[in-house]
Amino acid sequence: WASLGAEAEPRPPNIVLLLMDDMGWGDLGVFGEPSKETPHLDQMAAEGMLFPNFYTANPLCSPSRAALLTGRLPIRNGFYTTNAHARNAYTPQEIVGGIPDSEFLLPELLKKAGYVNKIVGKWHLGHRPQFHPLKHGFDEWFGAPNCHFGPYDNKARPNIPVYRNWEMVGRFFEDFPINLKTGEANLTQIYLQEAVDFIKQQAHQQPFFLYWAVDATHAPVYASKSFLGTSQRGRYGDAVREIDDCVGKILKLLQDLGIQENTFVFFTSDNGAALISAPIQGGSNGPFLCGKQTTFEGGMREPAIAWWPGHIPAGRVSHQLGNVMDLFTTSLSLAGLKPPSDREIDGIDLLPAIVRGELIDRPIFYYRGNEMMAVRVGQYKAHYWTWSNSWEQFSQGIDFCPGQNISGVTTHSQEEHTKLPLLFHLGRDPGEKYPISFSSLEYQNVLLKIFPIVEEHKKTMIPAEPQLNVCNLAVMNWAPPGCEKLGRCLASPESKPEKCFWPH
Amino acid sequence: WASLGAEAEPRPPNIVLLLMDDMGWGDLGVFGEPSKETPHLDQMAAEGMLFPNFYTANPLCSPSRAALLTGRLPIRNGFYTTNAHARNAYTPQEIVGGIPDSEFLLPELLKKAGYVNKIVGKWHLGHRPQFHPLKHGFDEWFGAPNCHFGPYDNKARPNIPVYRNWEMVGRFFEDFPINLKTGEANLTQIYLQEAVDFIKQQAHQQPFFLYWAVDATHAPVYASKSFLGTSQRGRYGDAVREIDDCVGKILKLLQDLGIQENTFVFFTSDNGAALISAPIQGGSNGPFLCGKQTTFEGGMREPAIAWWPGHIPAGRVSHQLGNVMDLFTTSLSLAGLKPPSDREIDGIDLLPAIVRGELIDRPIFYYRGNEMMAVRVGQYKAHYWTWSNSWEQFSQGIDFCPGQNISGVTTHSQEEHTKLPLLFHLGRDPGEKYPISFSSLEYQNVLLKIFPIVEEHKKTMIPAEPQLNVCNLAVMNWAPPGCEKLGRCLASPESKPEKCFWPH
Ligand SMILES: [Ca+2]
Ligand SMILES: [Ca+2]
Repeated sequence: WASLGAEAEPRPPNIVLLLMDDMGWGDLGVFGEPSKETPHLDQMAAEGMLFPNFYTANPLCSPSRAALLTGRLPIRNGFYTTNAHARNAYTPQEIVGGIPDSEFLLPELLKKAGYVNKIVGKWHLGHRPQFHPLKHGFDEWFGAPNCHFGPYDNKARPNIPVYRNWEMVGRFFEDFPINLKTGEANLTQIYLQEAVDFIKQQAHQQPFFLYWAVDATHAPVYASKSFLGTSQRGRYGDAVREIDDCVGKILKLLQDLGIQENTFVFFTSDNGAALISAPIQGGSNGPFLCGKQTTFEGGMREPAIAWWPGHIPAGRVSHQLGNVMDLFTTSLSLAGLKPPSDREIDGIDLLPAIVRGELIDRPIFYYRGNEMMAVRVGQYKAHYWTWSNSWEQFSQGIDFCPGQNISGVTTHSQEEHTKLPLLFHLGRDPGEKYPISFSSLEYQNVLLKIFPIVEEHKKTMIPAEPQLNVCNLAVMNWAPPGCEKLGRCLASPESKPEKCFWPH
Repeated sequence: WASLGAEAEPRPPNIVLLLMDDMGWGDLGVFGEPSKETPHLDQMAAEGMLFPNFYTANPLCSPSRAALLTGRLPIRNGFYTTNAHARNAYTPQEIVGGIPDSEFLLPELLKKAGYVNKIVGKWHLGHRPQFHPLKHGFDEWFGAPNCHFGPYDNKARPNIPVYRNWEMVGRFFEDFPINLKTGEANLTQIYLQEAVDFIKQQAHQQPFFLYWAVDATHAPVYASKSFLGTSQRGRYGDAVREIDDCVGKILKLLQDLGIQENTFVFFTSDNGAALISAPIQGGSNGPFLCGKQTTFEGGMREPAIAWWPGHIPAGRVSHQLGNVMDLFTTSLSLAGLKPPSDREIDGIDLLPAIVRGELIDRPIFYYRGNEMMAVRVGQYKAHYWTWSNSWEQFSQGIDFCPGQNISGVTTHSQEEHTKLPLLFHLGRDPGEKYPISFSSLEYQNVLLKIFPIVEEHKKTMIPAEPQLNVCNLAVMNWAPPGCEKLGRCLASPESKPEKCFWPH
């Protein structure tokens, strides 16, 4: 790939991606959270650019993160399942798959422009040795390969390991305690320190890429002692307040080091708030419909702020339709690199929108597993399929849309609308409550515009081999690298590959 | 009443109340409206103080406005009905009642401190001669006594008159056109000019009180030609954008005249967004439940901003529980006056909260007609009665909670919970989705705190004579004062008083 403008800009900017876990659009004061408890993020927006129309590529952790780091829809990079139609899938520790070697990850490519790359926090692109982040372009890692679920007994199921670089340094609930009852854990403070140390270390050896993937807002929600009980919003709010405080400290550090004008910072989240865990352990999707696991706006619309003093005019709002996959392409552009040309890249370069305020016409595709559920073009969103979850689950109390019920929209059977999509105008109707009449001129005109965009998309879609089909208890984190040194290796059961069951 | 600090402050500040009609909490960018189309109001908040916990006294226009101007709950000032239990009532032109002479209105009292008072826009406290705003303390009026419904045929029902001061100067849909099809009307521009002229006129003769009660966001929603079609939100957004632009112009005028540090400005709305009119003619209540007509948060929580450069620190958020009735008491306080001591006043003086950042402990009572439906104490809200509307209406498509259905909460029969109130924590659960378990310690502790507050409230409650019980087609705006000069008097039918029918 050619190096763009490498002559004019000898040293590309540092890149800091602050990726939240299950934080919703409505969780920030600047996005309307009534308690207004995110002063540092609100300040970040006041000094940077707010994106109210920013999306994830999938309403679940793993596929969203895979999309961010590859710039490609999960169906292209393998982070989906074909075990059942339109099912969400992720990387629990019994998953066999992970990020394919054939995928180019952002840090891998940034290396070509001299970046030193660190991931802090949750990886979630596969925990088996071949998927290790340091095999995919990161130079440093502190964090865990899977969600901080547990505690486990280390017999039927091992506790999730925490890695420093190549090797495990302990396990959640053992060396890194999380008190499920009180919600106390100091992991966010550890993650902050890791970020601070890395930034300080790299300040004299730029450029660097920091991927700060904290998970305190993912159930089980946690916060440090000094933040517990400080929020008006309960434990979830405590976690948000701690993260907000950390973001303030990271931005201040960049300023104190005098590298703020050479560091591009972007804040967003991997999927909508998990309403299933609300109100104690789940956040807010503001005015949007449903949450995590769904392709309604609440599952896919994310808070997003870009910050780059001296380059982004302060206090602007961009109505650019953005996507976490754009962070791949935009970061490459910042590094003076072009995206790979041998494959479809879904992310676009947002720099014209961010730096020059341009608006780039592009659709947003909403996938659930192997199905394109919906598409957004301009202010219009067309649902080709609707499904919140099954009646069976719903009747057991699993509700991704608590308190919300839009007849014919939040369906509990998989409803096909491919011939006559349900159409919404998200400007007039951000909550997807009022389908536009099939017989209206507006409907007909808009669909005439949307149909060829979807046709083109489907025509060029070559699904990758699905990575999230096979599970095997033997591949769990029994004996992560480094366990021998610590005397912490566990015996694994016999290998027994099975089709993973994905209910949603 | 004693003049407080009159020695220290020879000239009290001007007071400008910007009261919106049916605008929801979620309609402003600063409160999370995704389109972010209120730059001037957001700027007002950035220069002033935001109140995310601000309420109206009633989820309907007339009672809310009567409460604002008297500092008293509608049940105390007569703006309610006893025709049926817990019914919303207002002042259509067939209403016989209006603001009783026995009530002290804010402008009446401000006169004692030398204020010149003007109302621009919607009065809605009764249209019969004895209720005229100039008989209740205002010195000037430009606007209408009722909602801008119509057009009428002037036979079965007259068009609503527009007054300048004592006399009518025309009628809606005749002299003041509103195009129901296109949404075009230049009323907001006229209301802006009225405000501008008054402020300029009074700049050399302070103090003044301007009550700017525009109604473009009340159905039928309208905007001027230059704003129509400019919003991402459709016609409703056009109206919001025009009002936002006007607010920017009013604040700039105060600054250009150099009187900004001597002018207290407060922005709020009379009730929650009318979801029944959404998405084309209704706004957004953000994350809150239901809308206008209901005592859920969506009906009662209002956007609110205080602005007073040099007195209010810029960019602050106050979590003070506020109410439109507080604008009465706070305005008196600004004027160095004490509220009447011969009656219960529900509004409190917010100046300690606004100027010194204090938090004043006080409950919020949610009334619907003659019934106290709910109470908020701190972060907790207890519902003593629930009702959205009747099954009969609901089945006819009248839905005050479109897309929202909380089992046992958004009930379609009037459900009594006086023995065991439904309890919500509005910090953790702003959407009133998760009732706190009756058997929890939290429930018991909170109710122990709430019960005596409600007991005390009920004990001291002396309902006024209800003003909204009797309707009579003969009292409509057939021959408003001034109609003779214009040759525009209409013949009234025979007087036939009847009980008004209030379905909600
Ligand atoms: Ca997640
Ligand atoms: Ca109203």
